[in-house]
Amino acid sequence: MAEAASARRTRITSEREAELYMSVLDLLREVGYDALTMDAVAARTRSSKATLYRQWGGKAELVAGAIRQQEPAASGINTGSLRGDFYAVVTREDDVRIDQNYALLRGLATVVHENPDLLRALRELIIEPEIEELREILGRATERGEILPDNPAQGYLLHMLIGAFAVRSVIDQLPPTQSFLPSYIDAVVVPALGA
Amino acid sequence: MAEAASARRTRITSEREAELYMSVLDLLREVGYDALTMDAVAARTRSSKATLYRQWGGKAELVAGAIRQQEPAASGINTGSLRGDFYAVVTREDDVRIDQNYALLRGLATVVHENPDLLRALRELIIEPEIEELREILGRATERGEILPDNPAQGYLLHMLIGAFAVRSVIDQLPPTQSFLPSYIDAVVVPALGA
Repeated sequence: MAEAASARRTRITSEREAELYMSVLDLLREVGYDALTMDAVAARTRSSKATLYRQWGGKAELVAGAIRQQEPAASGINTGSLRGDFYAVVTREDDVRIDQNYALLRGLATVVHENPDLLRALRELIIEPEIEELREILGRATERGEILPDNPAQGYLLHMLIGAFAVRSVIDQLPPTQSFLPSYIDAVVVPALGA
Repeated sequence: MAEAASARRTRITSEREAELYMSVLDLLREVGYDALTMDAVAARTRSSKATLYRQWGGKAELVAGAIRQQEPAASGINTGSLRGDFYAVVTREDDVRIDQNYALLRGLATVVHENPDLLRALRELIIEPEIEELREILGRATERGEILPDNPAQGYLLHMLIGAFAVRSVIDQLPPTQSFLPSYIDAVVVPALGA
């Protein structure tokens, strides 16, 4: 699947891809997922719809790809401690950027129930790679002896982190800032992992 | 505020109130929050709109009240241990009921950004009473010496719990069952609290 996608993508330059993704995110902010059409993306980016479908497969993959593209990867993070790695993960984007990204994802979360293809694309392109990066962090912490390999909280990292974003943003109506997120890591995530 | 609401409510019988709430929840499931009108509630329940506004103040309070009404209170829970109390809280409704309630709340969560009055009503009638009940559980655990009074995870209970519901339901597309929730309590909530 990842290979097929990258084979398809070699047909356009990475510069052109970045341009396209930017337009998709602009449209997404302007009209929301449901009203975003491949026609509108084609018009805005002066592409043919055939090209868009050939490169991405569909609207869901195009949107998920656009969001993934602008998130800095956590894969380069390796500070030498579990706490340090988690701090680096949650602060790898500045407050403005993390709030913008989270607003986009929150909007998509409200429509995934009616768009199973969107959920599938978000899982494949955003959630699973993120879980994989978190697993590498946990793996190194296990090797260093910071956490036990069978600690059951390891299976709930996403639950803990998404809960922090969701309550902070939806209920408290506050942005998930670089001062809030590390304090949550210290209070909840690290102790739950037994580190 | 609570006194004012209860003074208003003494004007109708609790039986009639339960009937009204049931109809509101039916309408909410059928058309969603945005399309639910006080006219429709009045027609369905054979009430006057004036009565509805006098008793509840508005649509947001009526909807939040209807959801609150059908949730069993956690205030009677006192098992003698922190883990026992949390188990009782998350299993006080059976799997079918908790899934139905959570589906309603998930639907409302998608529209609170555009409905600040709904967020306010949900906070006052559902979230704050729930936090208060959780605080009593934490207070007793502190008195028993199970947890330290200054444990910072105490301020993030809602984040941990809502994260469990949200990821389970939105991403994993699985119901938050009576077997899932206690395992999350054991893996995350109790260790984060240091108990």
